Amino acid sequence: MEDTSPVGLRLTAPDLSTPAFLIDDEKLTANLERAKEKALDLNVTLRPHLKTHKSIAIARRQMVSPEGPATVSTLREARYFAGEGVKDLIYAVGIAPQKLPQVLAIRESGCDLKIILDSVEAAQAVSAFCQKEEADIPVLIEVDCDGHRSGIKPESDRLLDVAEALTDGANLVGVLTHAGASYDVEDLAVIRAAAKAERDGIVLAADRLRDAGYAIDIVSVGSTPTMTYAEDETGITELRAGVYALGDLFMMNLGVVRMDQIAGSVLCTVIGRQEEKGQVIVDAGWLAMSRDRGTARQHCDFGYGLVCDIDGTPLRGCDIRMTGANQEHGIIAAVAGDRLDPADFPIGRRLRILPNHACPTAAPYEKLWLVRDGTVIDELEHVRAW
Amino acid sequence: MEDTSPVGLRLTAPDLSTPAFLIDDEKLTANLERAKEKALDLNVTLRPHLKTHKSIAIARRQMVSPEGPATVSTLREARYFAGEGVKDLIYAVGIAPQKLPQVLAIRESGCDLKIILDSVEAAQAVSAFCQKEEADIPVLIEVDCDGHRSGIKPESDRLLDVAEALTDGANLVGVLTHAGASYDVEDLAVIRAAAKAERDGIVLAADRLRDAGYAIDIVSVGSTPTMTYAEDETGITELRAGVYALGDLFMMNLGVVRMDQIAGSVLCTVIGRQEEKGQVIVDAGWLAMSRDRGTARQHCDFGYGLVCDIDGTPLRGCDIRMTGANQEHGIIAAVAGDRLDPADFPIGRRLRILPNHACPTAAPYEKLWLVRDGTVIDELEHVRAW
Repeated sequence: MEDTSPVGLRLTAPDLSTPAFLIDDEKLTANLERAKEKALDLNVTLRPHLKTHKSIAIARRQMVSPEGPATVSTLREARYFAGEGVKDLIYAVGIAPQKLPQVLAIRESGCDLKIILDSVEAAQAVSAFCQKEEADIPVLIEVDCDGHRSGIKPESDRLLDVAEALTDGANLVGVLTHAGASYDVEDLAVIRAAAKAERDGIVLAADRLRDAGYAIDIVSVGSTPTMTYAEDETGITELRAGVYALGDLFMMNLGVVRMDQIAGSVLCTVIGRQEEKGQVIVDAGWLAMSRDRGTARQHCDFGYGLVCDIDGTPLRGCDIRMTGANQEHGIIAAVAGDRLDPADFPIGRRLRILPNHACPTAAPYEKLWLVRDGTVIDELEHVRAW
Repeated sequence: MEDTSPVGLRLTAPDLSTPAFLIDDEKLTANLERAKEKALDLNVTLRPHLKTHKSIAIARRQMVSPEGPATVSTLREARYFAGEGVKDLIYAVGIAPQKLPQVLAIRESGCDLKIILDSVEAAQAVSAFCQKEEADIPVLIEVDCDGHRSGIKPESDRLLDVAEALTDGANLVGVLTHAGASYDVEDLAVIRAAAKAERDGIVLAADRLRDAGYAIDIVSVGSTPTMTYAEDETGITELRAGVYALGDLFMMNLGVVRMDQIAGSVLCTVIGRQEEKGQVIVDAGWLAMSRDRGTARQHCDFGYGLVCDIDGTPLRGCDIRMTGANQEHGIIAAVAGDRLDPADFPIGRRLRILPNHACPTAAPYEKLWLVRDGTVIDELEHVRAW
């Protein structure tokens, strides 16, 4: 059954197998356009992060040109998008030296794949590789603007040490940072401040390197929250962001998207009821929704997801949520109001569930289905695993 | 690079791409043998749940015969294993009526696929389908032995109502339960009591149906904790369990496996260090480890995983853990003792991480790699998604 294309099927069609990952075409379009406009307003290049959906069909609508630029989180994504004609990619995870042959192979296939690093040791490894292979690999130094994860502090001496350690074909072309800490606080003033700190930090790093004589062409920042609320990106050349394409409940709680802008959802089917507990069981568990419980630490905990009708409208004013999950079972219940009425949830009823986090939820599906007005209008390939 | 088979490569080989899911061959063998012996001791048939690894190569070592019996959690698994010659499967998730044509197609391919349900409504839907298609589908009624999730209470009148609603080719062949509540308490006495309650509940249900004139051939129970600690399964015909094949930190905290019995791990590579924070960054994030944080509510919280040397030995007496993760970044730190010494974690060092939960961790990988003595000895196909 699943081997037949779902294009043209209604979401209620019996031969539409669940769980399935749906993308609302109109919401997707609006999300992609909003980001393009924002980048234009800020006078920077949009370099979308493709890790959220990993699909060339969406990437082509998201990028400013079919050749890029874009960002990837794995070399598998890089190979896939390079094979689909994208010619300007940053692999935005610190390079492991063992991966350099793969990087070179992708570059030799015609894609200008750039890598990032944040240590003298990695810089030496890349330089030695380039010398040995007589290869050129463009490198960005990762900068830590907020203590979130990796990178070098903008004011650190190490910044210049790393630049100096890049020799032979290991060419320093820029600096990159990610304001990951902007995800931590549900306060738009804090997000705006994070956007400013992200910019100030990376511009300081770029200026210090330029003062030392290095040409820094790329000054790259990005996260969906800071992109959304950045007010001034002077000194920045490009914005990277990913999850904005689909949106999710976590971003909604942050104040970054509205509920009616969330484009990704999981279609599922009612398979049982525990009437005495007011629970309904559906065939989407944590493998279908992901185990991401990001909203658990936000002001509104959506459990494993917010339950919507087949048309994407939240049921009963957002009171119905996936309160529990096993591998292939989701448990749905009312969290505040009256118990669910079993009569409202006949066996076989189709529901849509909005996820906590679009990226891990979309990742395991073989295909992503683009929908409009309750009908599947396209079946999108994407890449999975590593 | 990843397109080349890794068989024969050392885990330190530069062309072994990370993250990768490893299975220790000797530990796997011992885990599988222990379960077979336990089933023999209890005089019941082992019907392993294949959802943990979804791989035919492991299934063939795990099942009592190449034709089964076995348990699956999706129809995609059912199709895959049926295609590989398994002829006796239970799809142990309540049936959605829309999936019945798929069930029938798998049955017509030569596999005796059985389904489960727990409502009159579903029983009527299956009966109507069988009548319309002139098909036979064997059905088990799901029994709720512990209030965990789905199923009918053994003493409920509904049990007989559902049996009565199975007509035409919808043939009642048995009862099935899953003592999911046995995962909730880290106390072996509680797990033993859960095993007894699981047995008592399902035997009561089977007896009530037999008293009403139904032939109940299959009386199916199972979970890894209750299988491990069951003392008497009189009245039971078969045991289902899955995660025991690979083991994980959650099962270790429960007291169900020892650390040196955990057969599944994630191979990753050091890509950076935050020396001032005592943190090391690796290229396995939550997509590679899963977002399952099951040990967070147990006596020992392992974060996103326990960090081991390349040979699988936990570093520094289990003190080094993956304390944080992003999509493709893992953050490793000491939780109690001295900070990590950066000199111990050069860029490019390979580590193995034991997961919280084997099932979601193994699920996204394209291949699973069987290893022995630090070398990949086989590359296992498995099935993903739905």
